[in-house]
Amino acid sequence: MPFTPALVEQRFVLDQIVRVGDLAANDRFAAASNDVVDAVLEGAGQFAAGEWAPLNRIGDTGGAKWTPDGVNMPDGYVQAYRDYVEGGWGTIGVPEAWGGQGLPFAIQTAVLETLGSANMGLALCPTLTVGAVEALVHHGSQAQQALYLPHLATGEWTGTMNLTEPQAGSDVGALRATASPRDDGTWSIKGTKIYISFGDHDMAPNIVHLVLARTPGSPPGTKGISLFLVPKYRLDADGRPGDFNDVRVVSIEHKMGLHASPTCVLSFGDHDDCVGELIGPEHGGMRAMFTMMNNARLNVGLQGVQVAEAATQQAVAYALDRVQSARTGSASRESVAIVEHPDVRRMLLRMKAQTQAARALVYYAAGQVDRAALGDTAARDRLEVVTPLAKAHATDLGNEVASLGIQVHGGMGYIEETGAAQFFRDARITPIYEGTNGIQAADLVGRKLALSGGEAFASLVADMRRGAEHEDLKALVEACELVGTRLATAGHDDRLAASYPFLTMLSVAVCGWLLEQQGRAAGDDPFGATKRACVDFYLAQIVPEALGLRAAATASADILYRLPAQAFAI
Amino acid sequence: MPFTPALVEQRFVLDQIVRVGDLAANDRFAAASNDVVDAVLEGAGQFAAGEWAPLNRIGDTGGAKWTPDGVNMPDGYVQAYRDYVEGGWGTIGVPEAWGGQGLPFAIQTAVLETLGSANMGLALCPTLTVGAVEALVHHGSQAQQALYLPHLATGEWTGTMNLTEPQAGSDVGALRATASPRDDGTWSIKGTKIYISFGDHDMAPNIVHLVLARTPGSPPGTKGISLFLVPKYRLDADGRPGDFNDVRVVSIEHKMGLHASPTCVLSFGDHDDCVGELIGPEHGGMRAMFTMMNNARLNVGLQGVQVAEAATQQAVAYALDRVQSARTGSASRESVAIVEHPDVRRMLLRMKAQTQAARALVYYAAGQVDRAALGDTAARDRLEVVTPLAKAHATDLGNEVASLGIQVHGGMGYIEETGAAQFFRDARITPIYEGTNGIQAADLVGRKLALSGGEAFASLVADMRRGAEHEDLKALVEACELVGTRLATAGHDDRLAASYPFLTMLSVAVCGWLLEQQGRAAGDDPFGATKRACVDFYLAQIVPEALGLRAAATASADILYRLPAQAFAI
Repeated sequence: MPFTPALVEQRFVLDQIVRVGDLAANDRFAAASNDVVDAVLEGAGQFAAGEWAPLNRIGDTGGAKWTPDGVNMPDGYVQAYRDYVEGGWGTIGVPEAWGGQGLPFAIQTAVLETLGSANMGLALCPTLTVGAVEALVHHGSQAQQALYLPHLATGEWTGTMNLTEPQAGSDVGALRATASPRDDGTWSIKGTKIYISFGDHDMAPNIVHLVLARTPGSPPGTKGISLFLVPKYRLDADGRPGDFNDVRVVSIEHKMGLHASPTCVLSFGDHDDCVGELIGPEHGGMRAMFTMMNNARLNVGLQGVQVAEAATQQAVAYALDRVQSARTGSASRESVAIVEHPDVRRMLLRMKAQTQAARALVYYAAGQVDRAALGDTAARDRLEVVTPLAKAHATDLGNEVASLGIQVHGGMGYIEETGAAQFFRDARITPIYEGTNGIQAADLVGRKLALSGGEAFASLVADMRRGAEHEDLKALVEACELVGTRLATAGHDDRLAASYPFLTMLSVAVCGWLLEQQGRAAGDDPFGATKRACVDFYLAQIVPEALGLRAAATASADILYRLPAQAFAI
Repeated sequence: MPFTPALVEQRFVLDQIVRVGDLAANDRFAAASNDVVDAVLEGAGQFAAGEWAPLNRIGDTGGAKWTPDGVNMPDGYVQAYRDYVEGGWGTIGVPEAWGGQGLPFAIQTAVLETLGSANMGLALCPTLTVGAVEALVHHGSQAQQALYLPHLATGEWTGTMNLTEPQAGSDVGALRATASPRDDGTWSIKGTKIYISFGDHDMAPNIVHLVLARTPGSPPGTKGISLFLVPKYRLDADGRPGDFNDVRVVSIEHKMGLHASPTCVLSFGDHDDCVGELIGPEHGGMRAMFTMMNNARLNVGLQGVQVAEAATQQAVAYALDRVQSARTGSASRESVAIVEHPDVRRMLLRMKAQTQAARALVYYAAGQVDRAALGDTAARDRLEVVTPLAKAHATDLGNEVASLGIQVHGGMGYIEETGAAQFFRDARITPIYEGTNGIQAADLVGRKLALSGGEAFASLVADMRRGAEHEDLKALVEACELVGTRLATAGHDDRLAASYPFLTMLSVAVCGWLLEQQGRAAGDDPFGATKRACVDFYLAQIVPEALGLRAAATASADILYRLPAQAFAI
């Protein structure tokens, strides 16, 4: 079925939650006038619906393919990506100094949502490029910026993030890739990286790998890690891709979903001829990586929104079309469209409400990125607190909504040709990569509760307390405050044992708070009526569910450690 | 990784929840002595682990294949099925009069769990045969029983259920397949059926299709439906498969999972040469079908247990093996197996507790089948009430546990070779087929709450009230009583709008009640310690979550119908 960009909703959330007008009042974001924002959203919508959405299933069935000469993208993808570059869709959030449009990150977020709802696999490629741009903007030398940023900003070249190695997944500090100094100040890179999304492909003349590696004599763990810029092709004297830089794609993974996105095993320096440049100071790799990773985490949360939106649209269209059974208790024995059956309607309203919740959360976080960029330190703190929520909860919601989407389709949902199954399979990676959702929960209770002496968390709670009107939402905010305060001083085990239920509670509280604001602002038009129905459903049914997590969020870790590890195999 | 049958747990649940000893005290189930039960469970475990489990991934990657001559099973499946027949594993629950072993349905349930944990796709075939046996035992003529049952009882021939047509899914009454009388008292069958699991395959010399169709002049809807026995090959004078009976397999579906199970489109009577026999009276089709379907629903619930058990075993093995990061707060900076990290442990304990909950629920229902067969009318009522819970909630849990299984594996979980993804994909059909879980919820609030004037529900609540000790469990039972009583007299829309959250609440209450019994009965051995940990986790964390559903289960339908259907597309 055709994909329809959620333009009205996007604009509404940008206005009400991001308050993009306030951003545009600053010189830095002066480009974000009402007209420009509308034009960008609409243009991206037309492009995504017209060119990217039709390729979504082809990407799933055909998939990216490994060849000895590199990875080939599925049919149509090379052109679709080229058109994306030429349309300027990669430059939205890039500063004007580097050839970008200088629009707020939140606008880029909305554009990326649309692209990813149309084609999540392909949209992952620009997501990674944006991360590389961020790293270079904040940590690159002037020379690096001048050579690479113009090409990355347009998407002409693409970027990757290289952290993971077989023995170093969540534990980045365990990585072993090495960088040895060369005479000319560059570094010789050696090592194997796994799970590298778009680590190779045939859509761009060059790929810029950002690689974490260890320099000689560096301390163990994360402290000894440095970040390197390693192009697929070294640049010639004119700054054009020249000699092959000894980065070999060994294989691509056979994944459950997201088949259009090649997940590569990359081998650097098999022939001792892989040259990298240090980005930022030696041993400053983790800091630079976090620059990429924080926004990347929001963008993965955004993938939850993408897939939720796409799955909801398809399920709604099916439910409006599929006729089955008379409505129970109705005088008429005529069969009706299944949208008329109460439990189907419950699923659809839940899908819509959860999609809006995920969008509110991720856009809200994106707005903090922009405020932080304007020097608002409170926004920087707020961003830190909501980033793990946006990544983890929005991806959890993407999975829930995609599963409901299958259920609405009944037996058809299990048939691959329908497309609902692809959303479900594609979505399942999002709670895993860019730091598993468990890692996000650990980040929340480990670092974020303590941020700015606890003030970052306290101020979020205070804002929610002031804003919340619905009784259950007030109760949930209060529960979050109590649990959060308790966890802030709890022992490591207790804190981590409760981290995931707490993350969910707090996320629902934030979503409820943001949705309630939207409900108050909604007008009397059809959009407003639908918005209010979704908000009311969220407050009446989903917020109380989160209150049911209080017990788990206040349980001690004892229940988990009472048994020896081997007893789990009993 | 190798599959280990859950023998100790199975035996424990059979003793404590099914109370198989009480069953064996009856002549009908005298065969179910302790020794026999142990031997059957162990033998099935050895067979399933040794012969079926190794084929599980082959079935997923190879899949059943359509050919012009019929469906070919994946490599090794023909022999694996033959060995199942020869081992007598299909005859466990079949009455001795028909060549079976006359053991309780609950024992058959345990055997089928083991087979399905090893290979869910292949185990679906016997599940369907068991349904055909049930239909013939209860509704077949003596001649039909004599001709077909001995071959079906052993599994030498397999059975299918043919309800669904493109326009008749959940609305069975909309079906159009026809049966026209022939001179010899048989019927000429014509029509197309879809979603027919094991509708064709090459593992058996004959396939017995049980087909719902309309006879001439029959009333519309479900009242005009009759059930027909339609073999793939008509029986010759010696009762052996003879002439082809004009049942053509048109295609098989391309499904997200369960690839070893061919899901067929069957065309009956393309050449007007498809002969069927009426089973039971004309227009008695729905009643006969429900005989098959009720047990089939329990067996689908059992698939939830199967996949949960398999996914849990794999995740536990991985978590014991995979070393990553030091434990937070530990004095040692040595990396540990991930089972030592609190949030991984939380996921594993949740997986174990939910698996045990699903098993308790399904086995409990199976025990009611056996008590009902002994003439216990209270058990018949209890069975009716818990059947939708067992089908819907156990399959929901299978999905939840399979998803957690992926999460425990991190990035590895998304790679198909790991196997965790197969469980997740296989599991996703179970909330859909044999009546979607929404249909189960409608059955619960529509028929089961009112059964025996409400006494069937009231007596379950009374039993739980008497048994429950944990405060939250008591509160949940009370909430279920209040909600159930309210829904019993509510309007259709309100009742259906609340049906799914109510089904989940009630299911968790029943599971909590059954698990609490198990916790009290658990001994001081390692199994008992693990059991108590799972029970305590369930009561402390999962029961309170279900209390969070109270709001949704008491909400009116107004919130769902405030918008016109088309507004869902906004």
